[in-house]
Amino acid sequence: MIGGGEGSQIGPAHRLGSGLDGLFEFTAGALDHRPEAGRSYGQQLGLAADRSYGDWREMLEGESAREDRVDLVTVATPNSTHFEITKAYLEAGFHVLCEKPMTMTVDEGEQIVRIAQENKRICAVNYGYTGYSLVRHMRAMVARGDLGKIRLVNAEFAHGHHADAADADNPRVRWRYDPAQAGVSAQFADCGIHALHMASFVTGQEVTKLSADIVSCIASRELEDDAMVNFRMDGGTVGRLWTSSIAIGRQHGLSIQVFGEKGGLRWSQEQPNQLYWMPLNQRLQIIERGETNLSPEADRATRVTIGHAEGMPLAFANIYKDLAEAIRAEKETRPTDPAADLYPRATDGLRSMAAVVAVAKSGAAGGEWVDARPPMFR
Amino acid sequence: MIGGGEGSQIGPAHRLGSGLDGLFEFTAGALDHRPEAGRSYGQQLGLAADRSYGDWREMLEGESAREDRVDLVTVATPNSTHFEITKAYLEAGFHVLCEKPMTMTVDEGEQIVRIAQENKRICAVNYGYTGYSLVRHMRAMVARGDLGKIRLVNAEFAHGHHADAADADNPRVRWRYDPAQAGVSAQFADCGIHALHMASFVTGQEVTKLSADIVSCIASRELEDDAMVNFRMDGGTVGRLWTSSIAIGRQHGLSIQVFGEKGGLRWSQEQPNQLYWMPLNQRLQIIERGETNLSPEADRATRVTIGHAEGMPLAFANIYKDLAEAIRAEKETRPTDPAADLYPRATDGLRSMAAVVAVAKSGAAGGEWVDARPPMFR
Amino acid sequence: MIGGGEGSQIGPAHRLGSGLDGLFEFTAGALDHRPEAGRSYGQQLGLAADRSYGDWREMLEGESAREDRVDLVTVATPNSTHFEITKAYLEAGFHVLCEKPMTMTVDEGEQIVRIAQENKRICAVNYGYTGYSLVRHMRAMVARGDLGKIRLVNAEFAHGHHADAADADNPRVRWRYDPAQAGVSAQFADCGIHALHMASFVTGQEVTKLSADIVSCIASRELEDDAMVNFRMDGGTVGRLWTSSIAIGRQHGLSIQVFGEKGGLRWSQEQPNQLYWMPLNQRLQIIERGETNLSPEADRATRVTIGHAEGMPLAFANIYKDLAEAIRAEKETRPTDPAADLYPRATDGLRSMAAVVAVAKSGAAGGEWVDARPPMFR
Amino acid sequence: MIGGGEGSQIGPAHRLGSGLDGLFEFTAGALDHRPEAGRSYGQQLGLAADRSYGDWREMLEGESAREDRVDLVTVATPNSTHFEITKAYLEAGFHVLCEKPMTMTVDEGEQIVRIAQENKRICAVNYGYTGYSLVRHMRAMVARGDLGKIRLVNAEFAHGHHADAADADNPRVRWRYDPAQAGVSAQFADCGIHALHMASFVTGQEVTKLSADIVSCIASRELEDDAMVNFRMDGGTVGRLWTSSIAIGRQHGLSIQVFGEKGGLRWSQEQPNQLYWMPLNQRLQIIERGETNLSPEADRATRVTIGHAEGMPLAFANIYKDLAEAIRAEKETRPTDPAADLYPRATDGLRSMAAVVAVAKSGAAGGEWVDARPPMFR
Ligand SMILES: NC(=O)c1ccc[n+]([C@@H]2O[C@H](COP(=O)([O-])OP(=O)(O)OC[C@H]3O[C@@H](n4cnc5c(N)ncnc54)[C@H](O)[C@@H]3O)[C@@H](O)[C@H]2O)c1
Ligand SMILES: NC(=O)c1ccc[n+]([C@@H]2O[C@H](COP(=O)([O-])OP(=O)(O)OC[C@H]3O[C@@H](n4cnc5c(N)ncnc54)[C@H](O)[C@@H]3O)[C@@H](O)[C@H]2O)c1
Ligand SMILES: NC(=O)c1ccc[n+]([C@@H]2O[C@H](COP(=O)([O-])OP(=O)(O)OC[C@H]3O[C@@H](n4cnc5c(N)ncnc54)[C@H](O)[C@@H]3O)[C@@H](O)[C@H]2O)c1
Ligand SMILES: NC(=O)c1ccc[n+]([C@@H]2O[C@H](COP(=O)([O-])OP(=O)(O)OC[C@H]3O[C@@H](n4cnc5c(N)ncnc54)[C@H](O)[C@@H]3O)[C@@H](O)[C@H]2O)c1
Repeated sequence: MIGGGEGSQIGPAHRLGSGLDGLFEFTAGALDHRPEAGRSYGQQLGLAADRSYGDWREMLEGESAREDRVDLVTVATPNSTHFEITKAYLEAGFHVLCEKPMTMTVDEGEQIVRIAQENKRICAVNYGYTGYSLVRHMRAMVARGDLGKIRLVNAEFAHGHHADAADADNPRVRWRYDPAQAGVSAQFADCGIHALHMASFVTGQEVTKLSADIVSCIASRELEDDAMVNFRMDGGTVGRLWTSSIAIGRQHGLSIQVFGEKGGLRWSQEQPNQLYWMPLNQRLQIIERGETNLSPEADRATRVTIGHAEGMPLAFANIYKDLAEAIRAEKETRPTDPAADLYPRATDGLRSMAAVVAVAKSGAAGGEWVDARPPMFR
Repeated sequence: MIGGGEGSQIGPAHRLGSGLDGLFEFTAGALDHRPEAGRSYGQQLGLAADRSYGDWREMLEGESAREDRVDLVTVATPNSTHFEITKAYLEAGFHVLCEKPMTMTVDEGEQIVRIAQENKRICAVNYGYTGYSLVRHMRAMVARGDLGKIRLVNAEFAHGHHADAADADNPRVRWRYDPAQAGVSAQFADCGIHALHMASFVTGQEVTKLSADIVSCIASRELEDDAMVNFRMDGGTVGRLWTSSIAIGRQHGLSIQVFGEKGGLRWSQEQPNQLYWMPLNQRLQIIERGETNLSPEADRATRVTIGHAEGMPLAFANIYKDLAEAIRAEKETRPTDPAADLYPRATDGLRSMAAVVAVAKSGAAGGEWVDARPPMFR
Repeated sequence: MIGGGEGSQIGPAHRLGSGLDGLFEFTAGALDHRPEAGRSYGQQLGLAADRSYGDWREMLEGESAREDRVDLVTVATPNSTHFEITKAYLEAGFHVLCEKPMTMTVDEGEQIVRIAQENKRICAVNYGYTGYSLVRHMRAMVARGDLGKIRLVNAEFAHGHHADAADADNPRVRWRYDPAQAGVSAQFADCGIHALHMASFVTGQEVTKLSADIVSCIASRELEDDAMVNFRMDGGTVGRLWTSSIAIGRQHGLSIQVFGEKGGLRWSQEQPNQLYWMPLNQRLQIIERGETNLSPEADRATRVTIGHAEGMPLAFANIYKDLAEAIRAEKETRPTDPAADLYPRATDGLRSMAAVVAVAKSGAAGGEWVDARPPMFR
Repeated sequence: MIGGGEGSQIGPAHRLGSGLDGLFEFTAGALDHRPEAGRSYGQQLGLAADRSYGDWREMLEGESAREDRVDLVTVATPNSTHFEITKAYLEAGFHVLCEKPMTMTVDEGEQIVRIAQENKRICAVNYGYTGYSLVRHMRAMVARGDLGKIRLVNAEFAHGHHADAADADNPRVRWRYDPAQAGVSAQFADCGIHALHMASFVTGQEVTKLSADIVSCIASRELEDDAMVNFRMDGGTVGRLWTSSIAIGRQHGLSIQVFGEKGGLRWSQEQPNQLYWMPLNQRLQIIERGETNLSPEADRATRVTIGHAEGMPLAFANIYKDLAEAIRAEKETRPTDPAADLYPRATDGLRSMAAVVAVAKSGAAGGEWVDARPPMFR
């Protein structure tokens, strides 16, 4: 693991998710931008002294030299470093799970996609919410035709954690809305892409073009804290996506609704163990995680019996579980179990980056419709 | 009452709402487009034979000639007749409650506004959902500053009742998506304007401009069955509005979220007796209809004790209750109780019409931002 | 109407419920224990001066003498007066709707039942919550066998409105827990009997015996503020009932769950427009008030379209609607519409009284099982 | 680990929970009643060949002989074997986490308590639901006086998984209702004791006496499938507990409500990340897991940020986390962190056993109140 040092936000969730099934062991890391802090924290977490590295280059060198080199490198550093680190490890022959956003530009994203392909390495991107059992079940329901042709998808990621104007100058918050540090987009790039990726994941379609309305509700912000994005997908589905960081009263707010010819689905990340499903002209019914006779994709992503909540760490664990299967299949030169072949890929990371740029562009142009595809997929 | 004949959808709700408090008596009507059916149904409902009219002109004549002419005329006929009927009654000196949409064009809307002003008659429009006690409380909370400056409002009216492609040619449904009968907009004009009006009602601000993305998810439809509208309000609030008739799994789907500097509100028409309120940096709390110490506006619009649901007929009744107070105040030449002065007006009906036209125009122009104000308010 | 004077709790709900459908007109009353207050308030509400009586005896005399005497007398006075007034009106040939509890003793209850039978008068008791459309639908589902044999029913009526020890000596609250004024039971007699009656209404079975655990959580109270009652019904169903007035956080808390061989139901008064239904080995589904293809009983008790909440005043109105049908059928000497023949009867009021006595007796005897049937039904 | 072999219900949850924080490593086991199956499954799960034992005696011998013997033995075998195994390991100086119910008789329970005390070994019992962050927060709120004196606690564990009469003879289900295999109680012993223990855990009080109404809704069952238990606690709290296995529509159904002089709490296992709290005379508010400024007990038991669900495996992990702290504290001869000293103990297991016997006795005696304390605590 690179990044995820003491006090980091996402580090613990990765260690939890990767270790949970016993499929990965945490054996090496460069956890902090301060070499000493990283080394000592790594050892505190149980790493061997010689594998608790001071920085990612040291680790790259150290691990490359070992017989028992790590199978997978998780990159959980700040956004601007993802490209460089991910590129280096892929080129050195490591599989990588990179935090989102995968890169800062579309061009970097295309490079990563190419490098991963050329080196035949896995480059996964952590859209971890797709690991939930019922999210995978939604995808399976769509894929097997339960909803018929998908007409419309409506996704949200709206929270209120940056709503306090008095707190807006707090450095922990401010950098996110500063183009110099955050790039061309704030809230859409941070949260919106989760919702957009989920729309793709569930429908099995890719975004082609979009129109965005972006605003900064707190005046001192240069980048948006609220965005509404309309989009179109390559299977003909219409999309709507709202993301906000000033929605006081919402804690996390990632949710998705999918409407097809033959039924509608609704799911929300905060109550992830229930899925609301209405088949056309019938009643709303509640699908429970852990039910008998769900899809293989859902079954594989579930661990405890019905009625016992599974939460976000288990969703992350499912991404790792998929990666373990993919790595194992590669070692054993056999095909991957299709029900496990669901981890988000570098191409997803790239598409998100293209969408971020498109949102910024459309938003600046009064909502003009713009192509949201990366050049290499046009 | 004009319209609302046997089997009509909205007629019973008006009779229920107007009679419920004993403030209005149902004494005259031209209930059906078939004179005989209207007359006999009226008598069946208890109207005197000589006041159960065959058509609205007959009633206009009959009532104008009486000493004890009706105080208020409810117009609950199909949309295309609203203008003509409302105009005629206002000019003859009657107060009118007109169903929405008030007119078919902006110009007609402006005429109604002027006629009502010139004749000093009340012309109300039935945005009945604003009658709910907790909707009025939201407005009061905003007005008294509980939320601080309002940053963003997000409104929805998304149902799934026109989602069945097999049913789309059913005449009961088809006319709604046919420009010849429905005008320039279908779902936005039918449902979206309720949500838009509620955004205005609660924030106390008017819509200035908007950008719309409209689609027909069922291909045979000329008019939209789903629309996303971004808008701006004259107090600086940003608006988002989604309306759909293909959202399978949603029954009615009118809901609103309001986000200010100091807190956020969330309310949904299907569970109208609870209001979710989070003051900045505090916890989400549930405001119950009928609580002690709500606003005078909420208290006036409530009838039964806390914990007993009040539903939509009581919301309609509150519109009538306001009208009764307004009519009485006028008769007694005294000011109206401010907590009762909340019924939607002809100006609201006009503004909705301007928004409908703007949505159609923006939608046709790829989401271009267009002025949403009626000419007379520019 | 007798009782229901200015500021009374239940008076407005009766006037609302009875007038709402236009089936009853409010034409006479003795509304207050203070003759002058009653007379003037009656006139204020629109009663003719000669029918706004000073007390119930005056009204009995006055109405008996008239040709156009009232069809139905609602008794909404304090509990201890119900017997005397109801008896007098029944004997004089009026139909009566009496508030609950119908009497203060089982013996009085049996007298009322006999008098009503002998005089062939309707004596209804206002278990108004049975008027909800979906409660009637539950009854219909049970009756037509959707759940198979009913195994168990679990009912609750738990609120927190008497939880404040500092408020316990407030006269408005205190009398309820004082045996001299309230009789042998407080919370069970006030609220528990609603839940118990609902268990009977929905299952179509009567309570035979019960065992109670009663406690006074606030020490100064002589009567119980919390009770748990286990019971058995004559169709073999097992019952459980919890009632409380110290359950802080609960507003009203009337709810019921019914479990049969073939499925389970759950309904709650505070969200009365949804009914949760799980057929055995299938998924939980949500039945909406106003759905197509519900039972005739549900359809008759519903007024507005699906997705629009109906609340408690409409439930009360359904009791009045049934009474109107019963009175009309009697006048027309024809059978009553079975879907309307659902108003609670004097026998229900009597059975409740027997249950109240049984609860007090069992509670005092450490939970001993006691016969809960009135002597006349043993 | 003893038990928890391939296909077992609870085994995976233990391996998940114990490994999740990296505090325990799974190093030895006797996983199956079939020695070969156990040995091979153990190795499959990564155990060394010489520590994947054929039965628990072999493991006892093997581990006792090692320097690096396991720190903690989890006993996850069927109920009837718990006593013998737990006793043997405690006597040999191992710490034990035993599944519930700890023993089959009260006498055995007392023996375990004494043996653990005499050997100064930890004997924990897996009431794993007390590991949820918000359950611990409830306990902390009660302990620090937020609710004032606790008046009443109402707990439930009602599911519908044994409601199908056609499935009642399925051996997987039948043994549970057969006294020869299950002992004196079925549903109460299996599920009720979780709810009863939670009532004790949250209030910090012990059950003193109880009265039970037990029934077999499916006639072929000798033991109860539904029970209502009223109880009293040593701090004066009144208790109510309903447990059922025929409640169709309920998935798991563990929930608790606590009512004190100054407020009320409500929590449900199926939505464990929200806690409903109403302070007296204020509004209902929603406490979210992961909020700032919760109690140290809650903070310690939480891992991911607010708005991300944590589920049951993390609750189990918290029990293990407490045990790790206790074991470490013992090794370091220092006091245990009080916020971690919350795992359920042998005394809890014993008290549950006494309650099971009391429920069976009271149920057989028509609900007589019986002492629910184990003899050693009378
Ligand atoms: N997938 C998700 O749901 C999700 C959620 C939160 C954060 N994230 C992503 O995770 C990444 C990290 O976010 P965070 O909130 O944990 O950030 P953070 O600031 O809390 O932690 C970053 C950690 O990386 C370390 N670090 C920084 N530069 C480093 C370097 N060059 N080498 C080694 N370590 C270095 C820091 O010392 C720190 O420990 C971001 O890209 C963010 O977008 C993803
Ligand atoms: N405010 C709301 O929430 C709401 C809800 C539903 C409908 N509406 C509005 O109410 C109006 C009526 O809708 P509806 O669904 O009840 O329609 P409907 O078709 O069900 O009923 C219309 C009634 O008007 C009668 N009618 C038609 N032309 C007439 C005429 N010239 N003179 C007299 N009677 C005439 C018809 O005979 C019929 O009885 C529409 O404008 C609609 O938009 C408003
Ligand atoms: N069915 C329900 O859901 C429900 C709910 C609340 C109350 N109730 C019942 O309704 C009854 C009234 O309760 P309330 O809460 O409205 O009481 P209240 O004290 O608020 O009002 C009682 C009214 O009766 C009048 N009154 C008293 N004695 C009278 C007499 N002899 N003649 C004429 N009027 C007289 C009083 O002046 C007052 O206006 C009670 O029996 C109560 O149990 C039923
Ligand atoms: N705390 C909880 O929430 C919870 C939930 C479920 C089960 N449980 C308890 O867990 C225990 C196990 O239940 P389960 O549902 O997993 O049972 P199960 O029948 O699914 O599995 C039992 C396992 O133990 C093995 N086993 C049996 N006898 C053994 C022996 N002598 N030595 C070694 N292994 C042996 C079996 O081979 C099997 O693998 C029970 O006591 C049950 O009450 C607790």
